[in-house]
Amino acid sequence: MKKVRVGIVGAGGYGGCGAVELLTRHPGAEVAVLVDTQDVGRPMSEMYPHLNGFCDMVIKSPDDPDMPKDLDVVLFATPDGVGQKGAPFWLENGTKVVDYSGDFRFNDADTYKGYASRIGRTQEHASPQLLSESVYGLAELHRDEIRKSRLVGNPGCFAVSCILGLTPALAERIIEPDSIICDAKTGISGAGKNPKPTWHFPARYETMNAYKISGHQHVYEIERELSRVAGRDITITFTPHAIPLCRGILSTIYADLKPGLTAKTIEEAYRGFYNKDAFVRVFGPDKPQMSVYMRGTNFCNLSINVDERTNKLIVVSLIDNLVKGQAGSAVQNLNLMCGLDETEGLMHPGIYP
Amino acid sequence: MKKVRVGIVGAGGYGGCGAVELLTRHPGAEVAVLVDTQDVGRPMSEMYPHLNGFCDMVIKSPDDPDMPKDLDVVLFATPDGVGQKGAPFWLENGTKVVDYSGDFRFNDADTYKGYASRIGRTQEHASPQLLSESVYGLAELHRDEIRKSRLVGNPGCFAVSCILGLTPALAERIIEPDSIICDAKTGISGAGKNPKPTWHFPARYETMNAYKISGHQHVYEIERELSRVAGRDITITFTPHAIPLCRGILSTIYADLKPGLTAKTIEEAYRGFYNKDAFVRVFGPDKPQMSVYMRGTNFCNLSINVDERTNKLIVVSLIDNLVKGQAGSAVQNLNLMCGLDETEGLMHPGIYP
Amino acid sequence: MKKVRVGIVGAGGYGGCGAVELLTRHPGAEVAVLVDTQDVGRPMSEMYPHLNGFCDMVIKSPDDPDMPKDLDVVLFATPDGVGQKGAPFWLENGTKVVDYSGDFRFNDADTYKGYASRIGRTQEHASPQLLSESVYGLAELHRDEIRKSRLVGNPGCFAVSCILGLTPALAERIIEPDSIICDAKTGISGAGKNPKPTWHFPARYETMNAYKISGHQHVYEIERELSRVAGRDITITFTPHAIPLCRGILSTIYADLKPGLTAKTIEEAYRGFYNKDAFVRVFGPDKPQMSVYMRGTNFCNLSINVDERTNKLIVVSLIDNLVKGQAGSAVQNLNLMCGLDETEGLMHPGIYP
Amino acid sequence: MKKVRVGIVGAGGYGGCGAVELLTRHPGAEVAVLVDTQDVGRPMSEMYPHLNGFCDMVIKSPDDPDMPKDLDVVLFATPDGVGQKGAPFWLENGTKVVDYSGDFRFNDADTYKGYASRIGRTQEHASPQLLSESVYGLAELHRDEIRKSRLVGNPGCFAVSCILGLTPALAERIIEPDSIICDAKTGISGAGKNPKPTWHFPARYETMNAYKISGHQHVYEIERELSRVAGRDITITFTPHAIPLCRGILSTIYADLKPGLTAKTIEEAYRGFYNKDAFVRVFGPDKPQMSVYMRGTNFCNLSINVDERTNKLIVVSLIDNLVKGQAGSAVQNLNLMCGLDETEGLMHPGIYP
Repeated sequence: MKKVRVGIVGAGGYGGCGAVELLTRHPGAEVAVLVDTQDVGRPMSEMYPHLNGFCDMVIKSPDDPDMPKDLDVVLFATPDGVGQKGAPFWLENGTKVVDYSGDFRFNDADTYKGYASRIGRTQEHASPQLLSESVYGLAELHRDEIRKSRLVGNPGCFAVSCILGLTPALAERIIEPDSIICDAKTGISGAGKNPKPTWHFPARYETMNAYKISGHQHVYEIERELSRVAGRDITITFTPHAIPLCRGILSTIYADLKPGLTAKTIEEAYRGFYNKDAFVRVFGPDKPQMSVYMRGTNFCNLSINVDERTNKLIVVSLIDNLVKGQAGSAVQNLNLMCGLDETEGLMHPGIYP
Repeated sequence: MKKVRVGIVGAGGYGGCGAVELLTRHPGAEVAVLVDTQDVGRPMSEMYPHLNGFCDMVIKSPDDPDMPKDLDVVLFATPDGVGQKGAPFWLENGTKVVDYSGDFRFNDADTYKGYASRIGRTQEHASPQLLSESVYGLAELHRDEIRKSRLVGNPGCFAVSCILGLTPALAERIIEPDSIICDAKTGISGAGKNPKPTWHFPARYETMNAYKISGHQHVYEIERELSRVAGRDITITFTPHAIPLCRGILSTIYADLKPGLTAKTIEEAYRGFYNKDAFVRVFGPDKPQMSVYMRGTNFCNLSINVDERTNKLIVVSLIDNLVKGQAGSAVQNLNLMCGLDETEGLMHPGIYP
Repeated sequence: MKKVRVGIVGAGGYGGCGAVELLTRHPGAEVAVLVDTQDVGRPMSEMYPHLNGFCDMVIKSPDDPDMPKDLDVVLFATPDGVGQKGAPFWLENGTKVVDYSGDFRFNDADTYKGYASRIGRTQEHASPQLLSESVYGLAELHRDEIRKSRLVGNPGCFAVSCILGLTPALAERIIEPDSIICDAKTGISGAGKNPKPTWHFPARYETMNAYKISGHQHVYEIERELSRVAGRDITITFTPHAIPLCRGILSTIYADLKPGLTAKTIEEAYRGFYNKDAFVRVFGPDKPQMSVYMRGTNFCNLSINVDERTNKLIVVSLIDNLVKGQAGSAVQNLNLMCGLDETEGLMHPGIYP
Repeated sequence: MKKVRVGIVGAGGYGGCGAVELLTRHPGAEVAVLVDTQDVGRPMSEMYPHLNGFCDMVIKSPDDPDMPKDLDVVLFATPDGVGQKGAPFWLENGTKVVDYSGDFRFNDADTYKGYASRIGRTQEHASPQLLSESVYGLAELHRDEIRKSRLVGNPGCFAVSCILGLTPALAERIIEPDSIICDAKTGISGAGKNPKPTWHFPARYETMNAYKISGHQHVYEIERELSRVAGRDITITFTPHAIPLCRGILSTIYADLKPGLTAKTIEEAYRGFYNKDAFVRVFGPDKPQMSVYMRGTNFCNLSINVDERTNKLIVVSLIDNLVKGQAGSAVQNLNLMCGLDETEGLMHPGIYP
């Protein structure tokens, strides 16, 4: 059977590299072209020597006149602002698009503007006409829409962990919607490939910190999704923390329980909610989870706890920020959009230790 | 001037080592005897070679008949259960005692029992007659009592960070007392010196996890202190997390704001509350803090933030768990108990990076 | 086609876990039974939660009467002394054996004794009759013998990196055999699963050290293999170092060059020597290599350098100590012994970063 | 007594910060001015918040007309090329100068040129007239000259560890001078403060590598010093490695032993050689040393080993690259140049773990 042909724009970043890694072992899809503005003309394995012999394809410039016209999907593994400019070209050629940034996570220009202001973007959206058809690419919540869509906005890494950790609690009316606090901890790979003083190895070696307190841009999409599920506007408290390890997000989520619920029924409600989702696994307090169990995989593990003394639900939601939080979700979306099995190329364990 | 003579029981653990490090550069106090049940007869610098030439004193057994009788203070840098047995001997000799464990953090046998049950201790307290006179060793809250006391229960590391982070908010009626959530992150040195599978280097390398969700024993003393300040019973939600670095506690503290307060006035209230405390420093949101700034020091830095969207106070409280969270507080208490300047031997910056 | 059925004795250690990970994605082989003396009756995924849903098989005791009789291969992922006792049982049943320890790396009882004394073993070998038929399991050097063998001694992790780094230089008469120095650096996972003070996370956090200077037990097999290749007795200087990361061995190998050679011809000699070896890759000084490129893979990358000022060959040899240095080599051997393609289940890149 | 007044040019880098840390607790010297081209007008503690309350002095521009004229010493904690331009101004004002870079490590323009070419500098030395009077700032070898000098070239970090590890062996005719190999491992703080892709936290997290094989610029000064001691030209093999920790250099040094020496006499020779050096400590093979023991201190620990099988001396030399390898040596030199006790402000242990 012919393999799905995938283009990756922004191939040289961690998000592009992650997609290449997954596609290298994907039985039903293959990398057809790699595009970036940096390192044009150099083989991917030169920048990422672990791909030596697995992906030696040369990076093309976005302006390269010799761009393949027969791609099934293009992944924009690019920062905000790139996909919204580049998507129309591919869509017009019949190529589907998954964008990693916030460019297509919102369905109208106004909402987008609200998001964009948080990251200091003042420009108008370059393709506002596409916003209404774009789908938020969290398969566990929008599987059917993604299947039918040609344009998907891949979710933010923190958003994946928080939305998956909270949706059953809101859908099943387990918690008070106004009481949500997400205390998120992320590995440093979430900062991407470009070096900055904050992410310099010696500056980051034995330290941790909270940052963007009450101002992280992912809050926007988390609140939008949670509000949709709850059927009312939801505002959350969200504090991200930078932790000195490479991969992993651990979000500790707190909310007030509605009356009359037991830990057991809540755990069952979560399990029931995700019983068709191959990548979400629900655990009780007897099976504590660590971020390393997710490393290199597309899983999201949820640990469901109840603090009876304060009547709180405490969900610990764990992902690999570069897989389920980025390239893994992109491949999961690609699978759905191209009629492949949702789990193809993604169903493997990580390595330990 | 004659130096204060200090004995350290449990010298071989990280808490004992930390006290030796601080006393080595302390102008007014000195190590007079080192006691432990392990490594008896070996010089301290053999177990801790960085102390070579600075502390080559030999470890004595607790049963050693030749124990100095002229000590001013003994630090019990020992696990729960040891100090409560050993304290009477020293007190009877006129030696003051600081105990690192929970043995003397509570003032009656019943309260102690409640604490002890959380750590699986079923034995009665060995010296219940001493509980009523023991003082909780957090100098910022109990300075005068510590000065007059001969028996101090040094606070737990998480407790130091959470109590210092919350006390002004409760004392100044800034927050709703029933809304407190402490999300604490600790470096692995908090686990002590003894190796366990959980703290094995490869098992801990690139991972983080929540543990003892709603069941950590430090909650007990945090709630006791906060209740005292608030003048009413307070129950908190507390989740500790293990983070793959060596030193540092970062507690992110959330609580609902009472109406009519601004970020500025809250910050000022905190600053006013601690204006006589050399080791607590208050910062606004413009000066984000990292745990490494505290490393090796007795400081507690507080970052005061307000989330106006959800009307929450968010305090980030940072300490070095082995200094302000353990040996540093012990030396601070020792200074107060022996009439030395509170900051003696403790007022130095750490190293960076 | 029927899959090769594999038993793993010592399944609960890192070496057993590594074999399970590789077999989980191996198209031609499968785990048939897991045996250990610890954690009997518990599913593998309870000790290694990252295997949840991939290997939930329950650990059997070695004494379990219900042991499958139809295994094709058993891997003894066990410490020295276990395989030599257990191997006869399996061999008599027609099951092939790969042993991870030093038990079957030597071909007579006397040589074994010399090795055993280095690790403090004084007992006689339990199955000396098997030693003459056992094969040293480094496929790049003994491929044909391994194919025909029913008993293979998997090589030591340091040995893999040093032997692969030196063999072409000796075989092609590039270096003076008496001048060899191996300065090896290893991640901490090489210490295995059991916690010890030396490998305690806080004790290991920001530190490095040389150990067993001129006394490491792997020297014995390195010298044996190098002597075989050189056709004369070779003695090497070997210093291992513990480095604070989890996976990876980097051996920096120094030797005096014979006259009349150029960097280019040496690099070509290495490339020629390994041109049929899928897992050994040779690079010149223009392509510096890092240990992370090998992480999770069965590759050994060799960086070939010449110091013209001192007329030295400097080879940097890199592996993942838990894959090519342990479980990967075991699976590579298993493939050869069972008539599978040598690279089956092993030909994939790692993840980065 | 009046304190020695110290200026620091390049205050904002790790080398400047390290000097400030040491001077903060120095009883006989004090920071008088901080100069840098970056962050002019900002207090030092803004860039380095751990210095809050200890050094809040504002950074001056090098062009600031209001530069103090009464300084006793200026430290140029600057990259190559800066000190050679700036030194004359201070020297003319009667201020002594210690330069951290290679600018004043060599005593004539030709030798300097050889060094400079290794780091890609093609410019002529800006102050060649000063080279003949400059002294190489390794106090253990040049104490008396440093005392009398007004211009000192602080040694390179690798050079400190290798020269101290080898000098007694050459001075006492213990080794064959042509057989020296230095395999050096360094923490990442040696790369300085400026972020680069190579030192980006995720890129460096679980990896190690050799670099500049046979081409590191410190080789030049190591060979010069060793040749001086040996009384003949010495060429060494030197391979640096980057290791994922922050502070620490561990150099493993190999050389062929001359005949007729025992491990014991060699150890004694080393001990004798350094018996007046407070910061160099000699250990036998029974006291293995780790880099963390040196962290934050000005010590250099030497572990002396003999491999009898190959007749090699193996010295493990350990320092903190930012202290004895940089700012600590600078303060040690400053003490000597200003008539203070050599160890003032430097004689303290580090912290552990």
